[in-house]
Amino acid sequence: MTYKLIIQYEGTRYKGWQRLKTTDQTIQQKIENVLSRLLGEPIEIDGSGRTDAGVHALGQVASFKVTETISNLNEFRFQMNQYLPDDIIVLEIQGENDRFHARLNAVSKTYVYQIWLAEQPPLIERNWVLNLGSKRHQLNFEKMKLASEELIGKKDFKGFSTDKTKKGTIRTIESINWEIHGDVLQIKFTGDGFLYNMVRIIVGTLLEIGFDERQVDSLNQIIVSKDRALAGETAPAHGLYLESVRYE
Amino acid sequence: MTYKLIIQYEGTRYKGWQRLKTTDQTIQQKIENVLSRLLGEPIEIDGSGRTDAGVHALGQVASFKVTETISNLNEFRFQMNQYLPDDIIVLEIQGENDRFHARLNAVSKTYVYQIWLAEQPPLIERNWVLNLGSKRHQLNFEKMKLASEELIGKKDFKGFSTDKTKKGTIRTIESINWEIHGDVLQIKFTGDGFLYNMVRIIVGTLLEIGFDERQVDSLNQIIVSKDRALAGETAPAHGLYLESVRYE
Repeated sequence: MTYKLIIQYEGTRYKGWQRLKTTDQTIQQKIENVLSRLLGEPIEIDGSGRTDAGVHALGQVASFKVTETISNLNEFRFQMNQYLPDDIIVLEIQGENDRFHARLNAVSKTYVYQIWLAEQPPLIERNWVLNLGSKRHQLNFEKMKLASEELIGKKDFKGFSTDKTKKGTIRTIESINWEIHGDVLQIKFTGDGFLYNMVRIIVGTLLEIGFDERQVDSLNQIIVSKDRALAGETAPAHGLYLESVRYE
Repeated sequence: MTYKLIIQYEGTRYKGWQRLKTTDQTIQQKIENVLSRLLGEPIEIDGSGRTDAGVHALGQVASFKVTETISNLNEFRFQMNQYLPDDIIVLEIQGENDRFHARLNAVSKTYVYQIWLAEQPPLIERNWVLNLGSKRHQLNFEKMKLASEELIGKKDFKGFSTDKTKKGTIRTIESINWEIHGDVLQIKFTGDGFLYNMVRIIVGTLLEIGFDERQVDSLNQIIVSKDRALAGETAPAHGLYLESVRYE
């Protein structure tokens, strides 16, 4: 049987999503440990994609296969959450057809980068937002927003990535939405896929535009040159979370 | 000069507010360290009251005296927040007259106890709410609310405390308000003072009433008998925060 999990986590304490040989402090490993224990056989899960150390998720998706059918999914989810650390939560588990694969079948993803707008530093939200401190006064959001429009569409985003694979670096960004919720600016990126560090490098570059350290119309040059060195710094991981993954 | 601080903190990592000889992991100690360093003389602060290990604050108040006047309070607050750990925040600092004392002058305090209502466990809020899990379905808030009315007024709350001092145990609860914000039930206690563990024991006792494990009209008996053994269990610290302290 094949199952799909919808998962939330706070990445603060972890070395990222992806299982590693050097540490068990990865989100994938924690979930696999609990699944293997509850199901009585070694379980490997496929995430929709990796998230880096410190990056969070409110709607990560993973799939796995197991020999026997899980009889009571609601009870099973409850048990998973009992055994998982309290910064990893299974929101849903559902049966899928055997061809389902969380990464291969993903059609699009939405990532959100959060910037703190209030004068007082964040307390409860401190691990989920980028706090610019007093520098935030100098930030021009309209310029950032305007500049970001150049990124929408099907483009080669090699210049906005530290991906070292030889695989293609062409991706489509469907939309970039700017929303303010209380004291938080959310920049919401939806696309068919994102390269390694792509959202964080885009945000870092947009921040330089917002701070007037870079031309508003300079993003296309990075795309055309495919030169990572022309883009801005990688924005901190803790401001980023994977919001959702869409499937057909 | 005498100054007043308004402070927020997440209590999770600390042994409580009060300075201890055995550890420097107290909120008072962390703030005193930063103040002493910035002001160049040993500073002791007086909090409006102690909060236990794991209890948070959004509006704790403390006062301190220093030889010289602090010239730029805004800049000083900014520096304090630079040096403090990110789970302790100074919201405000202001000069007061020399008779001001955060504990002695406090007129009333508001504490909030938070209970998580959603089916999915809390993620960002996990250190700030009591999650009852699936048991929450059985909780009757109306009964809790009704029962709590017996606590309002000037009473001897010895039975709801583990205070061992010989000082008086008579306190006045001005109001208990019940509010729902999103997935969180807030029980808001305002009074002229609260004994050691008093809010947590009241909440633990109210929970037993909500779960039908105790009579709705049984609270007065605890007040009259002054017997801690008749009250319920102490509710977990992490659901509680000090919201504000009022001064004349």
